[in-house]
Amino acid sequence: MIAPSVIGFLAAILGTICWVPQVVKTLRSREVKDLSLGTNVLVLATVALWLIYGLLLGDWPLILANVFSVTCVGTIVAAKLIWGRE
Amino acid sequence: MIAPSVIGFLAAILGTICWVPQVVKTLRSREVKDLSLGTNVLVLATVALWLIYGLLLGDWPLILANVFSVTCVGTIVAAKLIWGRE
Repeated sequence: MIAPSVIGFLAAILGTICWVPQVVKTLRSREVKDLSLGTNVLVLATVALWLIYGLLLGDWPLILANVFSVTCVGTIVAAKLIWGRE
Repeated sequence: MIAPSVIGFLAAILGTICWVPQVVKTLRSREVKDLSLGTNVLVLATVALWLIYGLLLGDWPLILANVFSVTCVGTIVAAKLIWGRE
């Protein structure tokens, strides 16, 4: 059986890199109509809170992963605000 | 100062409910062109792994939160596969 820590580690890695395809697609197309602003703002708040949580605990993997996520999701939110028409 | 556990709890709540606006928007509009299939499949894999992690640990909050997330993100992925044209 796979150890829970391996599953958790894999989930943490995927949960960090998962934003990259959306960032690439959105920056290339500049099309944001179908993206929910609400969802992306809430996801940005979520990863910002995990970053603060990591800073409070001094947990470097959590800090680095969430600096990356905040950058990616912040880019998506900015794109939606700049290029959004609805 | 706010306790780290309060920040973590708030992040967990937001990270669970954040998918709802996208699900509502997508089901209403049936427009999925601007959504990245890659990102949504990776997010689905992430929340599925957190669900497995919760099941392995017998952690009920983690299980319930991720059953909800898997349902929401699974709906977005299904919508992209069914209504996507690129």
